[in-house]
Amino acid sequence: MRILVINPNTTRSMTDKAAEAARIVAGVGTEIIAATSQIGPASIEGHYDGALAVPGLLAEIRAGEQAGAQAAVIACFDDTGLDAARALAGIPVLGLCESALVTAGFLAQRFTVVTTLERSRVLLENLSRHYGFGGRVKVRAADIPVLELEDEASGALGKLRRQIELALDEDGAEAIVLGCAGMADLAFALQEEYGVPVIDGVSAAVKQAEALIAQRLTTSKRGSYAAPLAKVYSGAMAGFAP
Amino acid sequence: MRILVINPNTTRSMTDKAAEAARIVAGVGTEIIAATSQIGPASIEGHYDGALAVPGLLAEIRAGEQAGAQAAVIACFDDTGLDAARALAGIPVLGLCESALVTAGFLAQRFTVVTTLERSRVLLENLSRHYGFGGRVKVRAADIPVLELEDEASGALGKLRRQIELALDEDGAEAIVLGCAGMADLAFALQEEYGVPVIDGVSAAVKQAEALIAQRLTTSKRGSYAAPLAKVYSGAMAGFAP
Amino acid sequence: MRILVINPNTTRSMTDKAAEAARIVAGVGTEIIAATSQIGPASIEGHYDGALAVPGLLAEIRAGEQAGAQAAVIACFDDTGLDAARALAGIPVLGLCESALVTAGFLAQRFTVVTTLERSRVLLENLSRHYGFGGRVKVRAADIPVLELEDEASGALGKLRRQIELALDEDGAEAIVLGCAGMADLAFALQEEYGVPVIDGVSAAVKQAEALIAQRLTTSKRGSYAAPLAKVYSGAMAGFAP
Amino acid sequence: MRILVINPNTTRSMTDKAAEAARIVAGVGTEIIAATSQIGPASIEGHYDGALAVPGLLAEIRAGEQAGAQAAVIACFDDTGLDAARALAGIPVLGLCESALVTAGFLAQRFTVVTTLERSRVLLENLSRHYGFGGRVKVRAADIPVLELEDEASGALGKLRRQIELALDEDGAEAIVLGCAGMADLAFALQEEYGVPVIDGVSAAVKQAEALIAQRLTTSKRGSYAAPLAKVYSGAMAGFAP
Amino acid sequence: MRILVINPNTTRSMTDKAAEAARIVAGVGTEIIAATSQIGPASIEGHYDGALAVPGLLAEIRAGEQAGAQAAVIACFDDTGLDAARALAGIPVLGLCESALVTAGFLAQRFTVVTTLERSRVLLENLSRHYGFGGRVKVRAADIPVLELEDEASGALGKLRRQIELALDEDGAEAIVLGCAGMADLAFALQEEYGVPVIDGVSAAVKQAEALIAQRLTTSKRGSYAAPLAKVYSGAMAGFAP
Amino acid sequence: MRILVINPNTTRSMTDKAAEAARIVAGVGTEIIAATSQIGPASIEGHYDGALAVPGLLAEIRAGEQAGAQAAVIACFDDTGLDAARALAGIPVLGLCESALVTAGFLAQRFTVVTTLERSRVLLENLSRHYGFGGRVKVRAADIPVLELEDEASGALGKLRRQIELALDEDGAEAIVLGCAGMADLAFALQEEYGVPVIDGVSAAVKQAEALIAQRLTTSKRGSYAAPLAKVYSGAMAGFAP
Repeated sequence: MRILVINPNTTRSMTDKAAEAARIVAGVGTEIIAATSQIGPASIEGHYDGALAVPGLLAEIRAGEQAGAQAAVIACFDDTGLDAARALAGIPVLGLCESALVTAGFLAQRFTVVTTLERSRVLLENLSRHYGFGGRVKVRAADIPVLELEDEASGALGKLRRQIELALDEDGAEAIVLGCAGMADLAFALQEEYGVPVIDGVSAAVKQAEALIAQRLTTSKRGSYAAPLAKVYSGAMAGFAP
Repeated sequence: MRILVINPNTTRSMTDKAAEAARIVAGVGTEIIAATSQIGPASIEGHYDGALAVPGLLAEIRAGEQAGAQAAVIACFDDTGLDAARALAGIPVLGLCESALVTAGFLAQRFTVVTTLERSRVLLENLSRHYGFGGRVKVRAADIPVLELEDEASGALGKLRRQIELALDEDGAEAIVLGCAGMADLAFALQEEYGVPVIDGVSAAVKQAEALIAQRLTTSKRGSYAAPLAKVYSGAMAGFAP
Repeated sequence: MRILVINPNTTRSMTDKAAEAARIVAGVGTEIIAATSQIGPASIEGHYDGALAVPGLLAEIRAGEQAGAQAAVIACFDDTGLDAARALAGIPVLGLCESALVTAGFLAQRFTVVTTLERSRVLLENLSRHYGFGGRVKVRAADIPVLELEDEASGALGKLRRQIELALDEDGAEAIVLGCAGMADLAFALQEEYGVPVIDGVSAAVKQAEALIAQRLTTSKRGSYAAPLAKVYSGAMAGFAP
Repeated sequence: MRILVINPNTTRSMTDKAAEAARIVAGVGTEIIAATSQIGPASIEGHYDGALAVPGLLAEIRAGEQAGAQAAVIACFDDTGLDAARALAGIPVLGLCESALVTAGFLAQRFTVVTTLERSRVLLENLSRHYGFGGRVKVRAADIPVLELEDEASGALGKLRRQIELALDEDGAEAIVLGCAGMADLAFALQEEYGVPVIDGVSAAVKQAEALIAQRLTTSKRGSYAAPLAKVYSGAMAGFAP
Repeated sequence: MRILVINPNTTRSMTDKAAEAARIVAGVGTEIIAATSQIGPASIEGHYDGALAVPGLLAEIRAGEQAGAQAAVIACFDDTGLDAARALAGIPVLGLCESALVTAGFLAQRFTVVTTLERSRVLLENLSRHYGFGGRVKVRAADIPVLELEDEASGALGKLRRQIELALDEDGAEAIVLGCAGMADLAFALQEEYGVPVIDGVSAAVKQAEALIAQRLTTSKRGSYAAPLAKVYSGAMAGFAP
Repeated sequence: MRILVINPNTTRSMTDKAAEAARIVAGVGTEIIAATSQIGPASIEGHYDGALAVPGLLAEIRAGEQAGAQAAVIACFDDTGLDAARALAGIPVLGLCESALVTAGFLAQRFTVVTTLERSRVLLENLSRHYGFGGRVKVRAADIPVLELEDEASGALGKLRRQIELALDEDGAEAIVLGCAGMADLAFALQEEYGVPVIDGVSAAVKQAEALIAQRLTTSKRGSYAAPLAKVYSGAMAGFAP
C-alpha cells in the first residue's frame, strides 16, 4: 500500500515528524510518502490559516493520487480541507481529528483533547460535535504556539503535561487525544507516564487509511462528495479547475 | 453605512443580482458596495468549489475593509469562508445561510430550504445543525446547476416551484428559505404566490449587517475569531500573510 | 417604520429605559412607540410572573397593531407570551432573548447570558436550547431583583460586573448578553470596559423588527402561528375572544 | 388522597369526561375533585388560547390547594401553565403531555401522539423534545376541532382511527398516545382494537399524582420553581399578586 | 395488585431493604413479592457485573410472572437487563433509573444523581441521556462500594451527604436522586435534612408499576419488545430457550 | 498479530463465514482465531437473545485472551456484551456496529444500515445514536430471520437488495452498511453492483483491531471500563467471578 501523508503547512520539520510517526505504525508492505504543502502558512493556528492552507493541500492530494497513492492523510488536527479533498480525490482521505476521536472512542467513554492555542479550542469542540462526539469529549488548550512544538527548549512539553494532569483530575478523562500533528512524537511516552491511552492523530489516520484500502473502500461519489463539476476557475486558482 | 456585498464566485451577473437585492432592502443612508471575486470558480457547487473560493473572498474582505466598509456580506448560501473572514476582519461579516435561517426562525417554527444541487443538500443540513436549526429545517435540492439561475429559459424556476410545493405539502413547511444567492430576485414573487414567508439570504444578511453596525457591535476577537498571528505564507498565498 | 416596544410589566421606568435603548439604535425614519402593560406584575421574575404578564401584553399587541404598528417587541428577556403574540398578530413580533442570542451568534461562538435571579437561570437555559443555542450559551444569575436595576444605589451594577468577569475567566465567553430588559442602558459602557461584544436584547430586537419590515416579512400563518379560531372566552378574559 | 383535576378550558362536558377517566384509574381511597376554569377560552387550540387559559387555571390551582387537594392535574395535553402552576403551588402539579409521554416510554421505544389540529402539532413536537422524547415521538394531527370530540356524530373518531392506522403503518409506532384531554374516554377501546398500548393523558397524570403523594414528594422550591416573590399586580390580574 | 421486586444481585439484605422501601409506598391492596437472584454477582458494580446478573434476573422475571405477578421491578439503578426483561415478559417491567429520573422530572428542572462508584458514573450519564434527561442531570460518584451501604459503620452515609452538598452548592441541583437500590432507606431522612426532593428508585418504580397496572397497560409487543423467537439455546443457557 | 473473532451465537456456519471475511481483509502476519460461543442462543434476534448470549461471549473473550489473542472482535452487529467485554479484557475489544459506522463515516455523510428483523431496527437506531451517528444513519429491516442468511435458497438476498435500493432512492444514502454478521460474504458483490461503498462489520472490526494493536493502544482501565472488582458469583455464573 502507498499512503500519502500531507503536511498542509509549509514547515518541513513537521512533515518529517508526521512521516516518522506514520512509519512506526504502518503495516508490513505499507509505503509512507510524505509531502509538504508548497503554498500557504508555515503553521495552522485558527480558521484563517486553516482556510488558506487548503489550496496547497489540494494540490498535493491531486499530485499524490496521480503518482499512485492509494489513500491520503491530512496531517493537521483541524481536519482542514477534508471535505474538499474527499470531493476531489478518488482515493480515501483521512483527517487527524476524525481518526483520533474514533480511535479513542473504541477505548474510552470520555476523553480530553489537548490542543495548542485557545483559538483552536472551540473549533475542535465544534468538530467533535460534528463527528458525533459532542457529549464525550472535552477540549483543552495548552497555550503552545504550534512551532514551539518543534523546539525542545520551549517548555511546550511541560504545558502539555499540565493539561493532561488537569484532564485526568478534573474532566474524568479516561484517555487523552493529542490535538496537534506536531505532538505525534510524544504519544507513546505520555501513555507510559500516565497509564491511560494517549492517541496521536497521525498514527490513527494512517491505520484508518490502511483499513480502508484493505477493505477496498473509498469515498462515496454519490451525494456530498460527488466529483467537482467542470467549470472555469480564474486568477491564482485557475490551475485548480476540475 | 457602507456595506460590502461580496460574490465569492467570479460570475458578474450573480454579483449584480445580489447587489440589486441588497439595495432594495437597505435602509436610508446605507451604501451597498458590490464586489466580485477575481480568483476562484465561476460558481460554487459543493465542497471543492467552496474551499477554492475562499482566497478570492478573503482578498475582497481585506480590500473592502481597508476601503472603509463597515460590514461585509458573503453572498453565497454555503457560508463559505465565513469563519476565516470573521477571524481576518475587524468589521462584522455575515453569511447568507446563517442570516436566512435566523430570519426564518422569527417567523416560523418549521421551514424548508430549497437549494440547487443534491451535492449541497447535506452540506446545508449540516450547516443548519451547526447553527442550531437541526430540528426545524428540511433541505431540498431542486436539481438546478447554479448558473442556470442566470438563464430565464432554463426551466430553473419551474423546478424551484415544484420543490416549494412539495415542502408545503409534505414537510409541513411554514416558510421557505431560498438556498442560493442566485435566487435573490425571486423571493418576493414567490411569497406573493404561495402566501408564506419566502426568505432570501442576501436581503437577510444585509439587514443583519445594518443591525450590527447600528448597535456598534463587531466580531469578538477573544477566542474563536482572534486575529490571525503573524507568520510566513508561501507560494501563491504569500500575499495573504497576516 | 413604526415599531411598538411593549414592557410587559407595569413599571413605567423600565419602559422608559427600553424606549431609550430602542431609539438609540433605531434607523432613520423609525418611530419607536413605547407601551407599558396595564395589567399584571410590576416585574417578571420567574414562571409565575411571566404567565400572568401575558394577558396585559397581548392587549397591548392588539391595540398597537390596530394603531398602525408594523412590528412589536416584547421587552422582557424571558420572551414571555411570544408564541401567543405571534399567533395573534398580523405584524412580526420579536422577543429579547431570541433576538439577542441570534445577534451574539453572528459575533462569537461561545457566550454567556448574565441575568438577574437564580430562578430565571434554568428558564433561560431552556429557552437558549429551544432556540438552538444549547451548546453555545452559558447562563449566569447575578442575584439582582429586577427592580434593583432601577436604583443606582442598589449595588446591582457591581454584581453584574462580577458575573461578567467570571464569564470571561471561567466560561471562555467570547461575548456577553445582558439577560434583562432593565440592563438595556448598560451595554455600551460594559462593552467599552471589557473589550468584548456586549449585547442588549432591546436593541437587538428593535433592529430585527426593522429588518423584517424592510424585507416585507411577517409571521407565517400556516401551522404553528395560525390565527386564533373564533370561540367564546369567559370571565375576565372575555375581551380577548378572537 | 385528594387529587384536583382542573379542566383549563370552560367547557363543562370536557371536565366531566376527564373526571370520569380519572376515577376509573384512581386507587382505593383517592378522591378526584374536578374543577372547570371560570375564565378563558371554551377550548384550547394553539398558543393563543393556551396562554389566555392560564390565569383561570392558576386560580383553580390556588383554590384547590387551599381546599386541601394534595396534587393537581392540568387536564390539557398542551401542558399549558404547568411551569407557572409548579411555581405557585406547594403541592405537585402534573401535565397530561409529560405524564403520557413518560408512561408510553415505559412500554415502547417509539410511539406516535395523535392530536387534534395541525396548529398543535409542532407545539407538541417541541414539548416532546423539551421533555427529552425528541427522537422517540412522532406527532400527527387528525384535523379535529377540540369540541367535535364532544359530539359523537362529528366523525371525529373516524379521523382519529385513520391517524392511528397511519402511525402503525408508516411511523413504526409501538404505542399510541392520545393527544387531547377530550379523547380520554376512547383509550381503552382503541387499545383493544389495535393491540398496542394506547395511553390517555388524564389517566396517566392522575396515577403520577398518586405516585408522588405516596412518596411524599412535591415540587422543589429551589431554583426554577421557587415560590413567586411578593409584588404589586395591577388591573384584572391584581388578585393574583403572590 | 401483585408486584414483583427483584434484586438482581444475590445479597439478601439488599432485597430486604428494597422490599421494605416498596411496602412503605405501595398502595392499599398492593402485595409486594420480593425475590433475590440465585445466580450471578453479590453486587453490581459496573458493566461486567451488570451483564452477568441478567440470566438470574430473567429467571426470576419468568418465574414471577408465572406465579401471578402483574408487574416487575428490577431493583438495581443500572437498569440492567431491562430491555431483555421487557421482551420476555407479558407484564410491565420497571427499572430504577428510568423511574427515578422520570419522577424527579416532575419536580425539578435540574437534578443530580448520586451513585456509588466512579465506574458507574458514565454508565449512568449515558443511561440518563438514553432516557432523554441528558441536559438535566448531573451524576456524581460517592466512592462507596455497594455492600458498604449494608454496613452502618462504613462511613458510607457521610460520603453520600458530602456529594449531596456539592450537588446543591455547585451543580444547581433542585432535587437529588439516590443512584443505588442500596440507598432506598435513606431517601426520606435526607429529604428532611436538605429540604429538596430526594428520590429513591425502588419507591419510584413500584409506584410506576401500580400506575401501569391500574391503567391496564403493558409493554408493547410490536417492534422493539416483540416476544423472543423460538430457537435452540445451548449449554448453561439451555433452560432460557423461549 | 493474533485477533480473536468470536461468534456470540452457537451457529458454527456463521462463525466460518465471519472468519473467512476476517481473513480476506487481514494484514500480512495477522492470524485470525475464530471461536463459537458454547452457551446461549443459536442466533441473536432482539434484546432477549442478545442478553443471554453474553455469558458465552465473555467466556470466549477470557479464554482467548489467556491463549494469547491481542484483540477481540464480537461478531454480532448488535454489539452485544461489548461494554462488559471491555471491562473484562486487557486487550481491545471491537464491535461490528461501532466499527462499521465509524468506517462508513469516513466515506459518506449519510448512510443506511440494512439489518434483518424489525425488532432490531430501533435497537440499532439507538446504538447509532449512542455512537454519535444519530443524525447521519437510517436503519432499515429487510424481514430476514438471521439463519435464513445461511440458506441461499431462502430469498434473503433479494430482500436485502430491495432495501438497499430503497435506501438509495428514498433515504439519500451515500453508502450502505450491512447490519448483520451473517451478511459478511455479500459486501463486495453488492458494492460492485450498486456503485456505492458497502461496509461489512466483520471486516471493519478486524481492521480496527489491527489498527489498535499497531498503535499499542488498549481499553482504558480508568473509569467506565475499570477491571471488575473481586466478589462472589453464585449458581451457574460462579465461574465468572473476577
